[in-house]
Amino acid sequence: MVAIGIDLGGTKIQGVATKGDEVVGEAKVVTPTGGVEAVVEAIVTCVARLDAPASAPVGVGAAGVVDTETGTLLQAPNLAGFDGPVPFGPLLAEALDTRVTVDNDANVAVLAEHLMGAGRGSNDLLGVWVGTGIGGGLILDGRLRRGPGGGAGEIGHMALVGTTRVCTCGMVGHLEAIAGRAAMEAEARRRHAAGTPTLMVELAGDKRMKSSVFAKALDAGDAVVSELLDEAVVALGTVIASAATLVDLERVVVGGGLAEKLGPSFVGRIEQAVRSRLFVPTSPLRVLPASLGDLAGAVGAARLSDL
Amino acid sequence: MVAIGIDLGGTKIQGVATKGDEVVGEAKVVTPTGGVEAVVEAIVTCVARLDAPASAPVGVGAAGVVDTETGTLLQAPNLAGFDGPVPFGPLLAEALDTRVTVDNDANVAVLAEHLMGAGRGSNDLLGVWVGTGIGGGLILDGRLRRGPGGGAGEIGHMALVGTTRVCTCGMVGHLEAIAGRAAMEAEARRRHAAGTPTLMVELAGDKRMKSSVFAKALDAGDAVVSELLDEAVVALGTVIASAATLVDLERVVVGGGLAEKLGPSFVGRIEQAVRSRLFVPTSPLRVLPASLGDLAGAVGAARLSDL
Repeated sequence: MVAIGIDLGGTKIQGVATKGDEVVGEAKVVTPTGGVEAVVEAIVTCVARLDAPASAPVGVGAAGVVDTETGTLLQAPNLAGFDGPVPFGPLLAEALDTRVTVDNDANVAVLAEHLMGAGRGSNDLLGVWVGTGIGGGLILDGRLRRGPGGGAGEIGHMALVGTTRVCTCGMVGHLEAIAGRAAMEAEARRRHAAGTPTLMVELAGDKRMKSSVFAKALDAGDAVVSELLDEAVVALGTVIASAATLVDLERVVVGGGLAEKLGPSFVGRIEQAVRSRLFVPTSPLRVLPASLGDLAGAVGAARLSDL
Repeated sequence: MVAIGIDLGGTKIQGVATKGDEVVGEAKVVTPTGGVEAVVEAIVTCVARLDAPASAPVGVGAAGVVDTETGTLLQAPNLAGFDGPVPFGPLLAEALDTRVTVDNDANVAVLAEHLMGAGRGSNDLLGVWVGTGIGGGLILDGRLRRGPGGGAGEIGHMALVGTTRVCTCGMVGHLEAIAGRAAMEAEARRRHAAGTPTLMVELAGDKRMKSSVFAKALDAGDAVVSELLDEAVVALGTVIASAATLVDLERVVVGGGLAEKLGPSFVGRIEQAVRSRLFVPTSPLRVLPASLGDLAGAVGAARLSDL
């Protein structure tokens, strides 16, 4: 049976058609900034290009907080014109005249890695997405853990002591405030302005400091990027080890834009940092790079209709 | 139906007979130090004193690492003569000629608080036991989370950054190394010896520094105990907030010898520390004192046969 998956991000909408574990079609459109109706229309266009049977169920992974029961997007700060709760699933189901399931983008990407990627074969799995922020998703006993409030898996907002950096969510000392790309960019610019020059700022200039800038500065031996990534590795290792100790995990999959640009050696360093903090150092826990790349979100979304 | 629960600790064996939510009998014997056979015999004596039907199923909560599938005690450092894995469940089943289920003592205490205590009505619950060490147990979707390796819920060994204190397990920077009674005792003695006198050492002398010593020193305005407990509250708050963010919890129940002696104000301070670190500050999460006291373990163990 063909199923359609849509990864709805702030800049692009990635669609796939899948048949079992196989991707049989891909389509991509730019995310419109004109509000809810425009986004629904863009998804209808994207789905049409996939050339799938009209009755194919559609799964959507959306950057935001989702009420999965009703398909409501409760918060979606990266989508222009999505203010307050939006009944996105029902709107899209009406426009497409088919069954629509909506979940958080980090959750669907973890689902994809669990079913078809680096998490295959493991029923107790944490996915960590290191990008602009830090997202996550948790599979326990083979099922996505959502929790009573729907907020499970938000590893980026797990707390650390001994830091005063403010998180994007306003709280002090969350993981994302140390190890997210945006947080490290802000800290690099702060140090640069305060008299510790760094190649990161020289390479990025006034533009957004892309993940590739981190990789280039690191290759060139820049001290600031090396320090910031050392801190990030310790913070990620601490939080992932804590997660593994609390729920007992078999596997952790690390992906996201920054992790992909820094490559397997970055993930290897995280694994080492995790292992040195585990309660059971002989634990079979493995920390592996995500393997599905950019399509993970859309592919995982296509599997939502199976759940 | 009558069920029997046994809380097997390092110093005493507490038994109860229960009928539904009601405790219909209690018995207590000293834990023998003569090894496995002596402990089995002591439990047989304890069960006989409960005067329950011979066929009543028996649940045991044991201080140690338990393979719940087979009833094997994998590690029980507090039980003399329990070296290496002991098939404790089968041995006891043979001696008692009835069905025996074995689990970890922290797990059964959380189960009891969930079913009959401060965690009643909540299906997503963390129990934290602050005593000599720090134990814990996790209820997710109304069921005890054990995890693929059986080690879930070990909140005492969740990791913190910014500390170099060594945990009883040998790792650096675990919660128990900051907020466990034994760790705080060691740190108080260290500071006392290094020239910062504290009432804690004066009250305890050369004996084990009981929880009541902490409470007395705190009441008397001792600076060291106040500092140590401040650190403990921050560490507990950080780790509990992280747990709540990762799995999405409705309730946290805090018990254990030290928490009971310090009373509800200590638990209230932990709740405040948790709330200031939550991703969703409006979360309905509550942090409450455990309500079943000393009998929690035995009462929870009696419920194991229902699972």
